[in-house]
Amino acid sequence: MPDMPEQSPIITLTSDFGNQDYYVGAMKAVILGICPEATLVDISHDLPPQDIMGGAWVLKNTAFLFPPGTIHLAVIDPGVGGDRRPVLLKVGDQYFVGPENGLFSLVVEGQEHEVVKLTNEAYWRESISKTFHGRDIFAPVAAHFARGEPMSAFGPALTELTKYRWAKPISDEEGIQGWIMHIDRYGNLITNIPKKVIEEHGSDFTFKIYVGNTILKDIASSFSSVSDGEPVALIGSSGMLEIAINKGSAEQMLGIEKGAPVSLVLQKNDS
Amino acid sequence: MPDMPEQSPIITLTSDFGNQDYYVGAMKAVILGICPEATLVDISHDLPPQDIMGGAWVLKNTAFLFPPGTIHLAVIDPGVGGDRRPVLLKVGDQYFVGPENGLFSLVVEGQEHEVVKLTNEAYWRESISKTFHGRDIFAPVAAHFARGEPMSAFGPALTELTKYRWAKPISDEEGIQGWIMHIDRYGNLITNIPKKVIEEHGSDFTFKIYVGNTILKDIASSFSSVSDGEPVALIGSSGMLEIAINKGSAEQMLGIEKGAPVSLVLQKNDS
Amino acid sequence: MPDMPEQSPIITLTSDFGNQDYYVGAMKAVILGICPEATLVDISHDLPPQDIMGGAWVLKNTAFLFPPGTIHLAVIDPGVGGDRRPVLLKVGDQYFVGPENGLFSLVVEGQEHEVVKLTNEAYWRESISKTFHGRDIFAPVAAHFARGEPMSAFGPALTELTKYRWAKPISDEEGIQGWIMHIDRYGNLITNIPKKVIEEHGSDFTFKIYVGNTILKDIASSFSSVSDGEPVALIGSSGMLEIAINKGSAEQMLGIEKGAPVSLVLQKNDS
Repeated sequence: MPDMPEQSPIITLTSDFGNQDYYVGAMKAVILGICPEATLVDISHDLPPQDIMGGAWVLKNTAFLFPPGTIHLAVIDPGVGGDRRPVLLKVGDQYFVGPENGLFSLVVEGQEHEVVKLTNEAYWRESISKTFHGRDIFAPVAAHFARGEPMSAFGPALTELTKYRWAKPISDEEGIQGWIMHIDRYGNLITNIPKKVIEEHGSDFTFKIYVGNTILKDIASSFSSVSDGEPVALIGSSGMLEIAINKGSAEQMLGIEKGAPVSLVLQKNDS
Repeated sequence: MPDMPEQSPIITLTSDFGNQDYYVGAMKAVILGICPEATLVDISHDLPPQDIMGGAWVLKNTAFLFPPGTIHLAVIDPGVGGDRRPVLLKVGDQYFVGPENGLFSLVVEGQEHEVVKLTNEAYWRESISKTFHGRDIFAPVAAHFARGEPMSAFGPALTELTKYRWAKPISDEEGIQGWIMHIDRYGNLITNIPKKVIEEHGSDFTFKIYVGNTILKDIASSFSSVSDGEPVALIGSSGMLEIAINKGSAEQMLGIEKGAPVSLVLQKNDS
Repeated sequence: MPDMPEQSPIITLTSDFGNQDYYVGAMKAVILGICPEATLVDISHDLPPQDIMGGAWVLKNTAFLFPPGTIHLAVIDPGVGGDRRPVLLKVGDQYFVGPENGLFSLVVEGQEHEVVKLTNEAYWRESISKTFHGRDIFAPVAAHFARGEPMSAFGPALTELTKYRWAKPISDEEGIQGWIMHIDRYGNLITNIPKKVIEEHGSDFTFKIYVGNTILKDIASSFSSVSDGEPVALIGSSGMLEIAINKGSAEQMLGIEKGAPVSLVLQKNDS
């Protein structure tokens, strides 16, 4: 086997641009124009328009699975042209480029991070539109950074990111109160209740789960713990409590929307 | 020109994950974490949720066009966490990784194949969720296999895949009875009747074609054999009989759904 | 760092094939079968079925941002199997392969170009379907061209492309009359009025803008020039006048469809 070339830099793309306009293509073009050796990886472009929370959720569940040094270009940017700050961010061994509007609030949660504000126009396109910084600022910055420029070249360090508050579940001796924070393509209802909060209640208890008009008797281990068409609560692949229908859509069959409350009421185990 | 590096392994991705969640991104991340030199190729992610038949159809029409040694990661997995078997499959010079639930039944049809059941957890992620084997088992297996591990390393050989029966057309001296097996994005109605079955009736006959309330007088050679907005039956690019509307949607204009019957009635040629 | 291999050729893909069928995957497979070293870049596949104008718009706004020598495979082809000509086109330092049906009319606008008609079947797949020239003609031609064959190998030069007329705005001393030519995923209404035509009226005037039942007092500089939920007219990232709602959908909130008229009426500045 011949010498392997150095691994080409990986740049991922996450946006709410969909796949029917020129927006994603323009960002890819700008990146390859500057850094043709980059490997581009589409993560998700069909996030609902302006769904910053959805983008934060996708980044949190993918970024840290990528090889060290991966650069994540993320553009969900309803405030483009306004005063939200454009940033380049290092969290662990991963890098992020995009608008500071909450999109990176889940990847920095509880983690050391470094951040610079993008101010050095030498790394931007020559003419900057007021509506598409993904193409004009973020894509070229990601590409120049992939070519080896240091973070400090892009602008001054910020001491901290703006804090964004995500609704946290409330846990007490009666149980746990949370919310549906995301509904996926299958209609699975993903709550903001992490496995860890459930486990803190120990193993002497089970939970009765109330969501909409539905009551579930306990947390199951997989979809197929129940019959087809039956509802089930389980810890999903993201580590959060999910409400699902085995081979069906919980969103449609239970009539639940994003933001709906979910209550877990502690039940003493019979023993 | 310098020495070319050995061609990087190609891994394709087919799923019903859509493009608005983290599921596709997480699989790509896991693959690149193990095999950063892999070339990832998206085939189709917007298959209807849990449409195993649709996935089988897509694989059959794409896999054998890829270069030898391509690895096809395919995850449409409504039975995840249940007892369907995870497999690695060789058919001709192509490889497939995913759940054995019918998804591979069209690519093996009438072809020699080898299959192993995935049991060697050394090639899986450390912690296996009950709901996302795409990320935790299939993606890492595809990536380790791309790095050169032999099939036998992943688990024991199976003597055969579970048989899945797909509805076959019925052909006799009166004609052919088939069904709409797929409707594509254009609203073209793709039947389960292959060109070959039609040709077996010889050239002394034409066919009158009945589908829904529509009667077509013969099989045409292309969309533009009829005027805009007119229905047409032709052999599609997959080699199957299709019912289409020239520059329109047969699904909408004829009001036909997947599963609808299609009858071809033999007509003696005037001569 | 070891010697870099020569940069691999870039082939982009633009189509109306969506992401739920085998069509995109089949084109990628054919390309990689012929030119495994190609870098494939998805531009847009969810263009509305048979929306040639939308495809032309996407190509115009992405192609010239790519590195020199990039090959753009574009297949929106309602006339497949009919008599529209298959072509390979050079415009500036970019190359295009696809059907000559208007899809390339915006990229050639006002630019020098060379074009050959694809006739040399040696570069096609062996068996050519009547309905999928993307797979059978355009993809293999793009791949062989990426491998270094000269344009002249693929067929005879054409002296010119068929002219397609796009509706141009009408500009006079009273103002500008244009149309909505595209509505993007956010519901932004993109007109056919370029910045240049507006600027020709000089700076002594502002414009009152009429679209549907809405009247806007002037052209603003960014979405955030107005409050959330308010309509705004601005020069979009494509250099065209757009009507938008800050953090909302102008399409839904103003009830406007593609093709609707937009009038800019000159107002003498108070001074």
